[in-house]
Amino acid sequence: MKIGFIGLGQMGRGMAGRLLEAGYPLRVWNRSRAVAETFGATGAVVAERPNELLDSDVVITMLADDAAVEAVWIAPGMVAKVPASTLHLNMASVSLRMARRLTHLHRAAGTPYVSAPVFGRPSAAASGQLDIVAAGAGEAIARCVPLFETLGRGWFNAGPEPHRANIVKIARNFLLGTIIESLGEAFALVQKSGMDPAAFLDIITRTSMNAPAYKNYGRLILEKPAEATFTLKLGMKDVELALEAGNDTAVPLPLAALLRTQHLAAIAHGYGDKEWASLGNYIAERAGL
Amino acid sequence: MKIGFIGLGQMGRGMAGRLLEAGYPLRVWNRSRAVAETFGATGAVVAERPNELLDSDVVITMLADDAAVEAVWIAPGMVAKVPASTLHLNMASVSLRMARRLTHLHRAAGTPYVSAPVFGRPSAAASGQLDIVAAGAGEAIARCVPLFETLGRGWFNAGPEPHRANIVKIARNFLLGTIIESLGEAFALVQKSGMDPAAFLDIITRTSMNAPAYKNYGRLILEKPAEATFTLKLGMKDVELALEAGNDTAVPLPLAALLRTQHLAAIAHGYGDKEWASLGNYIAERAGL
Amino acid sequence: MKIGFIGLGQMGRGMAGRLLEAGYPLRVWNRSRAVAETFGATGAVVAERPNELLDSDVVITMLADDAAVEAVWIAPGMVAKVPASTLHLNMASVSLRMARRLTHLHRAAGTPYVSAPVFGRPSAAASGQLDIVAAGAGEAIARCVPLFETLGRGWFNAGPEPHRANIVKIARNFLLGTIIESLGEAFALVQKSGMDPAAFLDIITRTSMNAPAYKNYGRLILEKPAEATFTLKLGMKDVELALEAGNDTAVPLPLAALLRTQHLAAIAHGYGDKEWASLGNYIAERAGL
Amino acid sequence: MKIGFIGLGQMGRGMAGRLLEAGYPLRVWNRSRAVAETFGATGAVVAERPNELLDSDVVITMLADDAAVEAVWIAPGMVAKVPASTLHLNMASVSLRMARRLTHLHRAAGTPYVSAPVFGRPSAAASGQLDIVAAGAGEAIARCVPLFETLGRGWFNAGPEPHRANIVKIARNFLLGTIIESLGEAFALVQKSGMDPAAFLDIITRTSMNAPAYKNYGRLILEKPAEATFTLKLGMKDVELALEAGNDTAVPLPLAALLRTQHLAAIAHGYGDKEWASLGNYIAERAGL
Repeated sequence: MKIGFIGLGQMGRGMAGRLLEAGYPLRVWNRSRAVAETFGATGAVVAERPNELLDSDVVITMLADDAAVEAVWIAPGMVAKVPASTLHLNMASVSLRMARRLTHLHRAAGTPYVSAPVFGRPSAAASGQLDIVAAGAGEAIARCVPLFETLGRGWFNAGPEPHRANIVKIARNFLLGTIIESLGEAFALVQKSGMDPAAFLDIITRTSMNAPAYKNYGRLILEKPAEATFTLKLGMKDVELALEAGNDTAVPLPLAALLRTQHLAAIAHGYGDKEWASLGNYIAERAGL
Repeated sequence: MKIGFIGLGQMGRGMAGRLLEAGYPLRVWNRSRAVAETFGATGAVVAERPNELLDSDVVITMLADDAAVEAVWIAPGMVAKVPASTLHLNMASVSLRMARRLTHLHRAAGTPYVSAPVFGRPSAAASGQLDIVAAGAGEAIARCVPLFETLGRGWFNAGPEPHRANIVKIARNFLLGTIIESLGEAFALVQKSGMDPAAFLDIITRTSMNAPAYKNYGRLILEKPAEATFTLKLGMKDVELALEAGNDTAVPLPLAALLRTQHLAAIAHGYGDKEWASLGNYIAERAGL
Repeated sequence: MKIGFIGLGQMGRGMAGRLLEAGYPLRVWNRSRAVAETFGATGAVVAERPNELLDSDVVITMLADDAAVEAVWIAPGMVAKVPASTLHLNMASVSLRMARRLTHLHRAAGTPYVSAPVFGRPSAAASGQLDIVAAGAGEAIARCVPLFETLGRGWFNAGPEPHRANIVKIARNFLLGTIIESLGEAFALVQKSGMDPAAFLDIITRTSMNAPAYKNYGRLILEKPAEATFTLKLGMKDVELALEAGNDTAVPLPLAALLRTQHLAAIAHGYGDKEWASLGNYIAERAGL
Repeated sequence: MKIGFIGLGQMGRGMAGRLLEAGYPLRVWNRSRAVAETFGATGAVVAERPNELLDSDVVITMLADDAAVEAVWIAPGMVAKVPASTLHLNMASVSLRMARRLTHLHRAAGTPYVSAPVFGRPSAAASGQLDIVAAGAGEAIARCVPLFETLGRGWFNAGPEPHRANIVKIARNFLLGTIIESLGEAFALVQKSGMDPAAFLDIITRTSMNAPAYKNYGRLILEKPAEATFTLKLGMKDVELALEAGNDTAVPLPLAALLRTQHLAAIAHGYGDKEWASLGNYIAERAGL
C-alpha cells in the first residue's frame, strides 16, 4: 500500500516515521520544505508539490487547522484531482464545519474519504500509541485498518458519517479542558485550606477519578513544566471548536463558554505559550495564591 | 471496642450494619425512632437519647448535614459531655465551617476528634466498599483504623487537621458535579451531530477518561433511572458547600458558580428529586433535544 | 408623631438627623453607645435599651443586616413587646427570607409592619434625597407617608406584602452590580482598542444609557476614589442576597452567579474594602491593563 | 454634495430617504434590485452596479455585515477604484477586524475613509433621530458633518482612528445585551416573589436607571411584540462581535460569554427570530414561569 503523507508537524512527523518503520513506502510533503528534507533522510521520498502524492493508495493529511486544509487541500482543488482509487484519510483535528465540507466535496467528486482524528501527544504518535476515532464508509474504513493498527494502540469506528469522528474529538477535547479547569479550582480550594494539592490528586486518582486525564493534567498543573508540548493557546482553539460546533447546532455550552473566558484571561496574563495545564496555575494566581 | 452510632440514614444504616456483621458491640440512636427500632432488630442496642452512647470507645456520627450536627451534637452540649476516653469520629459530610467549628470545640474540651467523610453510595456503605478520607491527630486516627478497614476498601490519611478531610470531600464532590455538567454538554453536542452519546461514552471511558466517575455518571445520564439514590437537590447542596468554602477562603470558583446556576435551572424544571446525573438530561432539554 | 430610631450607622445617622431637623421628637438607640451619644448632642434622646423606644408612634429600624435584626429585634422578642399602637417601619435592606419572617412575626403578634428599604448613599440620607420603596398594609403605609416625604425625594408603594419592597431593593441592587461589571468589561474592551473609556462613557450616557447609575458608577471606575462610601464587600453581600432569593424561589440567575465569582476574585486581589465600582478596576487588571 | 448610497436594508432605506428629503442628489445601489427600484420611485437614481457611484463626493455604505462588505466593497477592489476625491463613509456596524482592515486598505490607497456607525432603529433612521459615532481624519469628518446633522439628532467624534467608532458601537451594543439579560433575571426574580415586573420597571426607570435603554427593553420584554424590529439572532451577532474583539485584544469578557450562552439557549428554544428583548422571556421560561 503506497502512502502519501501531507503535514509533517510534531504529530505528523511521528506518525509518518511510524509508518516508515512498519515498512510502508512513503512519499511526504510539508509546507516548510526544510522539515520535509530532514524527514526524508529517514527513507521517505520528499515531494515538491502535494499533487505528486495523489496517485497513492491512501493520502493521509495531518494539517494544523482548517486554514491549512483550506490552503493545501481545498483551494488548489485537490479533491477534484484525486483519482477515484485514492483514499483521503484526514487524521487532523478540524472543525465540524470543515469536516462536513470535506465530506460534501469528496462525495460530489466520488472519491473515498475517511476522517480519523487521533488522541495523543507527539510521543504517542511516534510510538504507535495513539487512540484513533474513525468515521466513513465501511469499505473505506476497512482499507485503513492496517494503518490504524500501525499508528494506534486502539481505534474506534464512529460510523459512516465522517464528521462524527470529528465531533467526538471536539467533545472529548472539551472534556479535557473541563478537567483542567475543575482541577485548577479544586487545587486552589484545598490549598487555601491547608491541604496539599498533590495529596488531594493522589486521593482522587486512586478512587473515582482514576483516569489518565486526571493523572496527567493534575501532574502538569503541579509540575509547571518549562517546555510546553501542547500550549494553552492550542487548548483555546479546541474550546473554540466546541463553541463553534455548539453554535452551528444550537447547543448551549455554558461550560465551554466559561472555559473560553478563563483561557483568554490566562492569555492576557502571559500563559498563552505555556502548557495547556497552566490554566490551573492561572486559576491559583487568580485566587491570590 | 464499643461503638456508638448516631444517624441511621441510608448511608448510616449500611455502615452500622457492616460494623455489626464484623462483631462490634453497637449501640445506635436515630432522630426518627422507628428507623432505629427496625435497625435494632439486627442486633444493635437502641438508645433513647444520644447521651447514652457517650461512654463508648468511639462515637460515630453520620448526620445528614450541618443543621443536624448543630441540633444533635452541638446544641445539647455533647462535646462537653463526652468523656476524655471517647473518640468522636464524624464520618458525615459537613461544611468547611462546621468542620473547623467541631475541631475547635473538641480541642477546647480536650476530647479526641477525627473527621473521616466517605466516598460512595449506600450499597458501598453496606458492603464495606467505601473510600474514606480521614484527618485528625495521629494516635486518634490509629484508633480508628480497624473501623476504616471494616467500612472501606481503602482509606487515606489527610493529616492532623480534621477539616482537611472535609475540604477533600467537598472539592472531590465539586469535581463530580463538573463531570456531570461536562458530560451533559458533550452528550448534547455529539447527539445534535448525529453521534450516539452511548458510543461517545464508550470511546472516552476506554481512553483518557477511563474512570469510574465517567462510567457511572455517563451511564446514569443515558439510563435516566426512575428511582434516585442521590438526588440532584443533594448534588446542589454539595455545590453550595464548595462555594461557601470558596467564599470563606477567597477562592473564586467560576465553574462551581456555573454548576449552581445549572442545578437551580434544573430544579425549576422539575429535576430536583431525580438522580443527580439528570442534570445532564436537563442540559439536553435546554439544547432542544 | 413620636419616633424611635434604632441603628445609627452611616445611613441611619443621616436619616435620623433629617427627622430631627424636620421637628420630629426623636429617641434613638445604637449598639455602639458612643455613636448614639455623639448623635444625642444634636437633640435626640439617647435610650439605654431598644425597649425604651417601643411606646413611640413609629419605631424605625435601620440595622446593618439580617444578623443585626436577629440580634436586636427578634432574639429579644421585641415583636411581642411592641404595643399594638406602635408601627414598626423597617427601612434597612434585609434578605427576602428575613423580610418574610418579620412579616410573619408581626402578623402573628397583630402589630403593624411596613418594609421600606431605601436607594441612596449617606449623603442622600442626610439631605432627604433618598428614593424609598414601601410595602405593607394601606393604612400602615399611610401613617408613614409624612416620614417618607421628609426622608426621600420620592417614594413608591409596592403593595400590601411587605417582602415585595425587599425583593425590589434586592433586584435593583443586582442591576447595579451588573452595570458595574458590564461597564468594567466595556471599558477594558474599548481601552485595548485605543479608545478612552471616559469618552466612551460620555457617549453612552448622552444617548441610550443616559441614567444616574451609568454616570455615577462609570465615573467611580475611572476616578478610583481612595475612600470608599460603599465597599465592594458590601456589594458582594447584595449579590448574595439576590442569589439567596433566587435559590429560595427557584430562579436561576446566571448573571448574579457570575457577579459573585467576579466579586470574590476581586476580593482575593485586595479590592474588598475599596469602592464597589473598583470591580471595574479589577476587570481591567484581569485584562492585563 | 453628490451622494452615493450602497445598501438599502431597513436602516439604509430610512437614511437614504432622509438624505433625499434634505435635497441631496442621490444615487443608490442595492444587492436586491427590486428594493432599489422601489426606492428609486422616491427620486433617487438607481445604479446598475456599485462602481457607478464612485465618482460621488461621498459614498455611504450601509451593508448588513462583514460578509456583505467583503462581497460588495473589498472583493471587487472598490477601494482601489475610488477616486481620491471621493470619501468613503461606512455607517454600518462591522467587526473590529473589518474596521481595521478597511482603514488599512483606504490608507494604502490614499483615499479618505470615515467610520460612523449609528445607534437607533429603522424609525429613527427614517426620521433623522439617529445617534452617530464618527471616527477618521479631522478634515474627512468635517466633510461629513452636514450629513450627520441630517441623519442624526446628535453625533460624537471618537478621534482619528476609524476603528474606534466601531469599538464604541460594539461595546455599547454589548451593554444593551447586558441590560436585557439583567432585566430578564430581575423580572423573573421579583415575579416569583409576587411583585409585578411592570411596577418594578416603573420604579427603577424613575430612579437610578432612568434611561431609554431600560425603558425600551423593559417594555419590550413585558409586551412581547409579535413582530420583531431587531431579532434575537441579530443581537447574538452583536455579542459575537464583542467576543471576537475581546479575543483579538486579549480582553476576557465573562459577561459577554454568558450572554452568548443565553442567546444560544434561547435560539434552541425558538426565540431566534423574535425581538431581541425576548431573551428576557426565555429567562422567565427557564425559571419555570
